[in-house]
Amino acid sequence: MSDTADLHGYFFEDLAEGMTAVISKTVTDADVALFAGVSMDTNPLHLDEEFARSTRFGGRIAHGMLGASLISAVIGTRLPGPGAVYVAQTLRFRAPVRVGDTLRARVTVTALKPEKKRAELATVVLVGETVVIEGEATLMVPSRA
Amino acid sequence: MSDTADLHGYFFEDLAEGMTAVISKTVTDADVALFAGVSMDTNPLHLDEEFARSTRFGGRIAHGMLGASLISAVIGTRLPGPGAVYVAQTLRFRAPVRVGDTLRARVTVTALKPEKKRAELATVVLVGETVVIEGEATLMVPSRA
Amino acid sequence: MSDTADLHGYFFEDLAEGMTAVISKTVTDADVALFAGVSMDTNPLHLDEEFARSTRFGGRIAHGMLGASLISAVIGTRLPGPGAVYVAQTLRFRAPVRVGDTLRARVTVTALKPEKKRAELATVVLVGETVVIEGEATLMVPSRA
Amino acid sequence: MSDTADLHGYFFEDLAEGMTAVISKTVTDADVALFAGVSMDTNPLHLDEEFARSTRFGGRIAHGMLGASLISAVIGTRLPGPGAVYVAQTLRFRAPVRVGDTLRARVTVTALKPEKKRAELATVVLVGETVVIEGEATLMVPSRA
Repeated sequence: MSDTADLHGYFFEDLAEGMTAVISKTVTDADVALFAGVSMDTNPLHLDEEFARSTRFGGRIAHGMLGASLISAVIGTRLPGPGAVYVAQTLRFRAPVRVGDTLRARVTVTALKPEKKRAELATVVLVGETVVIEGEATLMVPSRA
Repeated sequence: MSDTADLHGYFFEDLAEGMTAVISKTVTDADVALFAGVSMDTNPLHLDEEFARSTRFGGRIAHGMLGASLISAVIGTRLPGPGAVYVAQTLRFRAPVRVGDTLRARVTVTALKPEKKRAELATVVLVGETVVIEGEATLMVPSRA
Repeated sequence: MSDTADLHGYFFEDLAEGMTAVISKTVTDADVALFAGVSMDTNPLHLDEEFARSTRFGGRIAHGMLGASLISAVIGTRLPGPGAVYVAQTLRFRAPVRVGDTLRARVTVTALKPEKKRAELATVVLVGETVVIEGEATLMVPSRA
Repeated sequence: MSDTADLHGYFFEDLAEGMTAVISKTVTDADVALFAGVSMDTNPLHLDEEFARSTRFGGRIAHGMLGASLISAVIGTRLPGPGAVYVAQTLRFRAPVRVGDTLRARVTVTALKPEKKRAELATVVLVGETVVIEGEATLMVPSRA
């Protein structure tokens, strides 16, 4: 098996409903600054403490898509992992994320559609017990054959 | 009017169906490297040219969520802009994005629901004429009153 | 109108004396670290708390040019915005900026010279009511014709 | 002499007209992406190759203030170095800087005003033989006494 094959994640045949995986990180000011630069999202809600204090959030919050990007990370590196193709993602932003919060992104296989090699995953991002993002992902997963 | 008020985007009363806004950038290797670092999405499809050549994409592609983050940027800085609250986003990944591609994220107001101060936006990310991501965003937009 | 045209800022004909725009952000340690890396300005006044405590400032301060770069941001994204050409900038550093301070950069059109398509702007960066940087910018602004 | 003293740059008495110092770096896409994030300057002239091609510059250019920040670097680390206080800077942007260009910032002491402990420096940023930025800096330099 080549090194490239070693890098491959789960094949469609290896997946089963209920399989789950997690990834996590603590959000820092550096993450917010870098995400602003890459995304061009310079909304003062993320970068300006004085503006953010005037909002319902009472202070700066991280970009919602920064949290969402952890869903992509767990999908792309753990379950199904490299080789799967991201088809769709829904995101419902439930609660704000602040600098210093530790994000935990968890995905769980909820349905497998062999005819199209599609996997459906429930995706959730948590800070402690609080759901900050929830949604569903659809992946196309290569067959081992 | 205070400087904080100057920073505010559109209020609900200022919005009308059909309003549109755009933001754009060229994706560089630096963007992919920084996005990988912040998101923890170290999928070799984005970072390993040899692995990526062995896939259906024939070479490295940018993170889908990097493209999606431009939707957040145009929403958060242009339409509705600062002050709006991101409620939900759907994403359908239609085509790959490569380093050197210029992404153009466009949002268009498609529906306004005054009773809940909700705005629905059609969201699309293009490379030239090719749709790479499409979906819908829901925002809660503060009232001027 | 093409998307590229959508991205353009004000044309010379759209400008009037007294027009103003603002941008703001809270300075974090991440900003100082990233600015040091990009600029090569590794002056211990910005990076070394012990050295900085021995100076008249009594502690680390942000790079003056970091504050000045917000003037470029408001000019380049708001007024006149994309398409204008930065010709000159004067900067007088009036007061130090510390990590945690919220910077507010404001530009105001003070003179328009139609024969050369030049706009003069008063530029100021504030922390609360304190002027930290003041100066003047000269821009060449494309004509709509 | 303490370590803190070791870090100090030139004192006023150590300066003489004609003294000069230089710092240099090659501008990369990473510098432009990071500078955009820290400064909030997401002008498409710097980030969007398609937009930039439609301008007089014919392609993306680096932020002018990124070049200017190298003047701050040579002042803050070499001449006069740590301990000097940045009072003022003028900047005239003469030519664009592109990714891959190697910037060389040079400062030269042009006048010394002992009564106020002020030093005037000529400041220039070059790409090869081309002046891209020129201006003058004013520093307040501590006395050894």
